Amino acid sequence: MIDGSIQSFPLTLDRILDHAAKWHDRAEVVTAREGLANARVTYAELRIRAKRTSSVLAGFGVTGGDRVATLAWNTQGHVEAWFAIMGMGAVCHTLNPRLTPTQLAWMLGQSGARIIIVSSDLVKLALEAVDEAPGVERVLVIDGETRLTHPRACVEPLEPMVEAASETFAWGGFDETSASGLCFTSGSTGAPKGVTYTHRSSFLHTLKLLQADVLGARTTDIVLPIVPLFHANAWGLPFALPAAGSKMVLPGRRTDGESLARLIASEGVTIAVGVPTVFLGLCEYLDATGTTLPSLDRIILGGAPTPPALMDRIERQLGVTVQNSWGMTELSPVGVFGVLSDPDRRASISGKPALGVDLRLLDEAGVPLPEQRGHEGRLHVRGAAVIERYFGQSQSVVDADGWFDTGDLARLDDNGNLTITGRAKDLIKSGGEWINPAEIESIVCALPEVSLAAVIGRADPKWSERPILLVEIRDGMEISDEALLASIRGQVASWWVPDAVVRLASIPLASTGKIDKLSLRAAYGA
Amino acid sequence: MIDGSIQSFPLTLDRILDHAAKWHDRAEVVTAREGLANARVTYAELRIRAKRTSSVLAGFGVTGGDRVATLAWNTQGHVEAWFAIMGMGAVCHTLNPRLTPTQLAWMLGQSGARIIIVSSDLVKLALEAVDEAPGVERVLVIDGETRLTHPRACVEPLEPMVEAASETFAWGGFDETSASGLCFTSGSTGAPKGVTYTHRSSFLHTLKLLQADVLGARTTDIVLPIVPLFHANAWGLPFALPAAGSKMVLPGRRTDGESLARLIASEGVTIAVGVPTVFLGLCEYLDATGTTLPSLDRIILGGAPTPPALMDRIERQLGVTVQNSWGMTELSPVGVFGVLSDPDRRASISGKPALGVDLRLLDEAGVPLPEQRGHEGRLHVRGAAVIERYFGQSQSVVDADGWFDTGDLARLDDNGNLTITGRAKDLIKSGGEWINPAEIESIVCALPEVSLAAVIGRADPKWSERPILLVEIRDGMEISDEALLASIRGQVASWWVPDAVVRLASIPLASTGKIDKLSLRAAYGA
Repeated sequence: MIDGSIQSFPLTLDRILDHAAKWHDRAEVVTAREGLANARVTYAELRIRAKRTSSVLAGFGVTGGDRVATLAWNTQGHVEAWFAIMGMGAVCHTLNPRLTPTQLAWMLGQSGARIIIVSSDLVKLALEAVDEAPGVERVLVIDGETRLTHPRACVEPLEPMVEAASETFAWGGFDETSASGLCFTSGSTGAPKGVTYTHRSSFLHTLKLLQADVLGARTTDIVLPIVPLFHANAWGLPFALPAAGSKMVLPGRRTDGESLARLIASEGVTIAVGVPTVFLGLCEYLDATGTTLPSLDRIILGGAPTPPALMDRIERQLGVTVQNSWGMTELSPVGVFGVLSDPDRRASISGKPALGVDLRLLDEAGVPLPEQRGHEGRLHVRGAAVIERYFGQSQSVVDADGWFDTGDLARLDDNGNLTITGRAKDLIKSGGEWINPAEIESIVCALPEVSLAAVIGRADPKWSERPILLVEIRDGMEISDEALLASIRGQVASWWVPDAVVRLASIPLASTGKIDKLSLRAAYGA
Repeated sequence: MIDGSIQSFPLTLDRILDHAAKWHDRAEVVTAREGLANARVTYAELRIRAKRTSSVLAGFGVTGGDRVATLAWNTQGHVEAWFAIMGMGAVCHTLNPRLTPTQLAWMLGQSGARIIIVSSDLVKLALEAVDEAPGVERVLVIDGETRLTHPRACVEPLEPMVEAASETFAWGGFDETSASGLCFTSGSTGAPKGVTYTHRSSFLHTLKLLQADVLGARTTDIVLPIVPLFHANAWGLPFALPAAGSKMVLPGRRTDGESLARLIASEGVTIAVGVPTVFLGLCEYLDATGTTLPSLDRIILGGAPTPPALMDRIERQLGVTVQNSWGMTELSPVGVFGVLSDPDRRASISGKPALGVDLRLLDEAGVPLPEQRGHEGRLHVRGAAVIERYFGQSQSVVDADGWFDTGDLARLDDNGNLTITGRAKDLIKSGGEWINPAEIESIVCALPEVSLAAVIGRADPKWSERPILLVEIRDGMEISDEALLASIRGQVASWWVPDAVVRLASIPLASTGKIDKLSLRAAYGA
């Protein structure tokens, strides 16, 4: 072995907030509050409050490896809880408030969390979950007050304890491969599965985001993570923004168009990040009120495929750069990001992998496509922040080279840019040939009358499955079944045209905002 | 321990070229050649050639941990050799062609390299070194041909072997903390010391550079590393540019103003990176010829303090953003970088540390300054790419918390931006009080008549030391001793004004281009 060495520097997430507090000490974290002025704190102050929170948790016996759950909106208190939990080597188990008490209780049972940190207006939901989760002993309330109590668990406000606690709690000192977070997948295609993040994987994911052609956050950026902290680490923003010294603006509970528009205007937000539907709401509010948002420079989309019509509308109406992305809970979650400097970048393309992520496409037999570009295939991913094994499972879900099967169908263009073309599980097999519902859905969604559309397979005695179209029509608009189907004809093979149209008042969405095809198939697929 | 895991992903440098070859396959590496058209190759082609080079080296018995030396300019062949050596787990020992054969032989003896890869016009120097370095068996010639031979070592052109070799050599598969590079410090303040880089440290250093507010390289950038590959990894650019998919433009041997201007114009260079003196040459050429360089957008300076007058001239004449930096071989080498988005960024400030580097200032007694900002102190650094122990030394050079004493004096402004104010070793102790030569030098250097200036201490029976001023006057200009000293009076304490002026035809520079104070003190300090 050659002599000489570089010093050890474990990639632990506490270093990110330490860095922000020391070198971007005046940059702010701002939280919208209903009926009150926005709350604001600097990274230096937030670090001290997070250290105090660690002291509180240590006082309740929390120690390295323990899971501490959060059920909270995007608020300063939630971010403080994150860094407090992770900094002390405990594991932050984020819960999604759009799930049912039974689902939440099941996840709490899986993780074994004894403490939940809960936004005040979610305490009722939390306590209903606690009814069914006997392991939970304590509910610490943030973001306001509650009068609710529980017969077994102790329900207390966190703030007075934080104010009284010591700020000298020492973070770090554990291995960089220690677990830092736990997030269950949405379960839109099966039972929820837990993904365990490590300090190292989230640190490297942060450095990936910080690259100039990815998120590329700067000290002058004012970034609004609309994507929830409980949704796969808010795509890594709570780490990337302090690392870069960007101002973080948190929307709290309200993500309707009016609330977002006010917050963007009052804080001068330059970059907003979220799923397509929240920006639809924002556009509609701006349309209705004639408001403009001159500070806004860039919108980052992800979490669900964006209908091209919405993409166009956002670009046109807001006059911003739209940067697309694609990821999964299993990827921490970013897989690809629209390459900011690429002159051929289009909002309709998900983007390219940055250093630390690799992709490849396979055929139906599981063999890599000989020509990776220009052909559709099944997408596999590997990288520094990609899952190896789900929580509670003994088997690895990657092959010997680290490739994880995403279950998505995708295409790479001539320049290596990825477009997701569908879910392999959603494919319809008709007469022995595959039909891709996503292609049909994107045609129908482009119609101005259509709010949402889903194509699923219906059992068919002759063809095994035949596609049917489920649609939700916009309020006050009309379109005939024939006109819907006519829009599809000529755009796809004739046998791809659905056999029937089913109109729904409201197409069901899963907790992440994606269409809940599981329940649609159960109701209409027989 | 919590269950579930993220996959292993060793941070080895071969992944960077793999990434570039797969995802930025058409981006180019261009090399200037005297009397020939620029050579050009894509990252995809360069990777294949580097793999073939690994096969050649393996054929000569090179294996993991072995040192392979390079003595070469910034050329495609040198970059290929780098990735070939590092990818196979061997250690790339870069040699500085500005050293003497005896110095080079000493370093070769230290590293134990049996093979040197040498630019054709450096073969003579290499063979003189090999005369004194009995361990060297083979000289592989790149960048042209040679007719020179050696009585003991085999001197052969590398290119025919590369063309005949297999491209299937497998890279990686070793631990990420394996050594990847070895670079000896300039020895401007003592015997040269070797710094051993690891795959992990250089990978993390790369991710640091890629941050939007640091180097922030993008796919549309066309970057000219004038800083040599043998100078602390060319500040990490040979890793960062393929990682980001930026076009890399290599100047070869010629870094005079005319050669650089032609290369920048012909390749559309947007970012040029080097020590201040090369940009002085560029400015003078542009002045003399009336040429402009419209593609050039940014200049990154480092490696030596930049006189403010030169800084102003570069900004004014080239109309570019000047981004300063400060680093050391021991830091891989970047310590701080001017924060690109900082509205208060000034060329005269070195910059801030990015995530992965931390700084602090100590007083003369070795105690951290209670107020870190606004006061001068001795600079200590720690981080993911900071030395722990020099090559061949048994003792660590960092304290228990990883702090490395840089030997520099520095000041942090109110926003945390660093300015290097001098070398602690250069301080002059006069009558029990310290005089900082750097402050006096920067005043004298601002005079238009002065080309270079150095202030050193001369032994004094009464005051122990007294400062004297050594100056090199610009050709064709004149200034009296009295006028030189008058420029200093009133700017510093009266007892800081030097006792004498010594005029030198040429102030000696060390191999890195810094003033060689060791030899000045030897000649004039008694």
